[in-house]
Amino acid sequence: MKNKLTNANFPMDVEGRVYHVGVKRGETANRIITVGDHVRARRIAKLLDGPEVKGRTVFELVSQRGFTTFTGTYQGVPVSIIAIGMGTPMVDFLLREIRACVEGPIAIIRFGSCGSLNALAGCGDMIVPSGAYSITRNYDHFLDGHDTEPAYHFSKVFDADPTLSRLLAASLTATLTANTSGCKVITGGLNATTDSFYSTQGRSDPAFRDDNERLVEEILPRERPGTDALEMETAALFHLARCANPKNPVRAAATMMVFANRVTNEFITPEVVDLLEPAAGKAVLEALIKVELEQEHPEKGSVWERIHVEVEA
Amino acid sequence: MKNKLTNANFPMDVEGRVYHVGVKRGETANRIITVGDHVRARRIAKLLDGPEVKGRTVFELVSQRGFTTFTGTYQGVPVSIIAIGMGTPMVDFLLREIRACVEGPIAIIRFGSCGSLNALAGCGDMIVPSGAYSITRNYDHFLDGHDTEPAYHFSKVFDADPTLSRLLAASLTATLTANTSGCKVITGGLNATTDSFYSTQGRSDPAFRDDNERLVEEILPRERPGTDALEMETAALFHLARCANPKNPVRAAATMMVFANRVTNEFITPEVVDLLEPAAGKAVLEALIKVELEQEHPEKGSVWERIHVEVEA
Repeated sequence: MKNKLTNANFPMDVEGRVYHVGVKRGETANRIITVGDHVRARRIAKLLDGPEVKGRTVFELVSQRGFTTFTGTYQGVPVSIIAIGMGTPMVDFLLREIRACVEGPIAIIRFGSCGSLNALAGCGDMIVPSGAYSITRNYDHFLDGHDTEPAYHFSKVFDADPTLSRLLAASLTATLTANTSGCKVITGGLNATTDSFYSTQGRSDPAFRDDNERLVEEILPRERPGTDALEMETAALFHLARCANPKNPVRAAATMMVFANRVTNEFITPEVVDLLEPAAGKAVLEALIKVELEQEHPEKGSVWERIHVEVEA
Repeated sequence: MKNKLTNANFPMDVEGRVYHVGVKRGETANRIITVGDHVRARRIAKLLDGPEVKGRTVFELVSQRGFTTFTGTYQGVPVSIIAIGMGTPMVDFLLREIRACVEGPIAIIRFGSCGSLNALAGCGDMIVPSGAYSITRNYDHFLDGHDTEPAYHFSKVFDADPTLSRLLAASLTATLTANTSGCKVITGGLNATTDSFYSTQGRSDPAFRDDNERLVEEILPRERPGTDALEMETAALFHLARCANPKNPVRAAATMMVFANRVTNEFITPEVVDLLEPAAGKAVLEALIKVELEQEHPEKGSVWERIHVEVEA
């Protein structure tokens, strides 16, 4: 803990920095890519405009609580790339704290990785889901006398923003066709967001009682047919976007690289990730700058203004 | 992604490193302190035995996915201090992946921070809960036609290990009385673990629909009277410890520093944290090395053996 905080309801430090993500007003843009891994975020940030575009450099902030933010411009349009680590609580931190720092609507694309339940979605393919739901462990089931309750709960489906998803799928298809060999873009299916990489994704772990033997192969296809992907964040993003105050909307879409195929038990190789991440990152950036927003965060006082002015001065 | 992984069911790299925490067998001890913040972990790791004790130095590993592990000895007993970031999914990663690397029972103490609901637990006091439960957002409530469902779900209570908790409370009381002025240790109450720092902890945020106006002041005291603390990890730890295979048990306890008092809206100062963290860290280490385990992870091949041998050689 570095700085004194005020207001236990919504803690900020004296500079106006939010407590966990660590940024303040003007350090994040309306258009955001969120990823898990800070290495991936940095790799995408390398695609942002450099000093040749109005002398711009990329703003970077690593917070003590696990968030890494890059803000700059892509083809002149302000964007942020924010690595959040893993799990739905991190999505909640991100969206609420960024919302407090950005004026106007937010367009946000999650660029994650996933396990695939679709034999046709192999390692290295990209999934763009139409919606996402959560699967959460029902703690109570594991207490004596409660094992008639289901061990896992399924939420309803929360839709991705259809316009942003269409832009994203089109951009991925165009870029991957040009830059990678044989990676496919799979659209229209559902994404399952889980609270464990292990139990809730149906992995078998004799060290713990999980009662998940039938979860992924039998219960999931019955409860939510058409599920392509398993990961740990997207449903929280789509859900919270839906709950945003309509005066200041949040438009959310997602794409995930298939890292593991759960049907064939294959895992992606580092070489394919090295090829795919920058190509798909570019596609996500291109979709993000195309979406129309009714209002942009003011340039005045922002890091993308400051950098510009500093170089011109 | 640095290394090729095998087995989509429980991914490990060719060295046997677990996928997210990044350690392999022999790099973590049976006795573990888990914290959120890597700065706190490092601060506690400074209390471990140094080269004056059999030439020992502390093993350190930062994983790409947000885990920081320190392993060494404290008064000659092997211990690990592992920072996991925030949220229950990170607890799940930790416990499952560490379980795959450690032989024998595990004793684990969470040393976190919390908001206090108890007017008597002021900023800088330490809470040792007897049990923990989760409060999770019911996504479905926020869909049209579902608002008669409760907006938040409460799990049942999962107990802390009573022996480890007694050792912990006694150690904290002794250390804090000696080292800090006026910090109290509060025992016997419950801890609520939430999936959001904001909505599920009853914070008011006009940017999102949360339907949480009555959650903390009215619903929580009725559903789970005697709740002292709100934080984001402990119920997952107590729950998973209970689900551990009895052949290889996990004994879990927790203590949390009060960072925010939600009754008085006060926030802790960095100066109090600087005083409290090392004092409480020492107390947690002392409790951890006192607990009896039926079996210890073998020294042979561990980082605490290797360091010892290297210096003697």
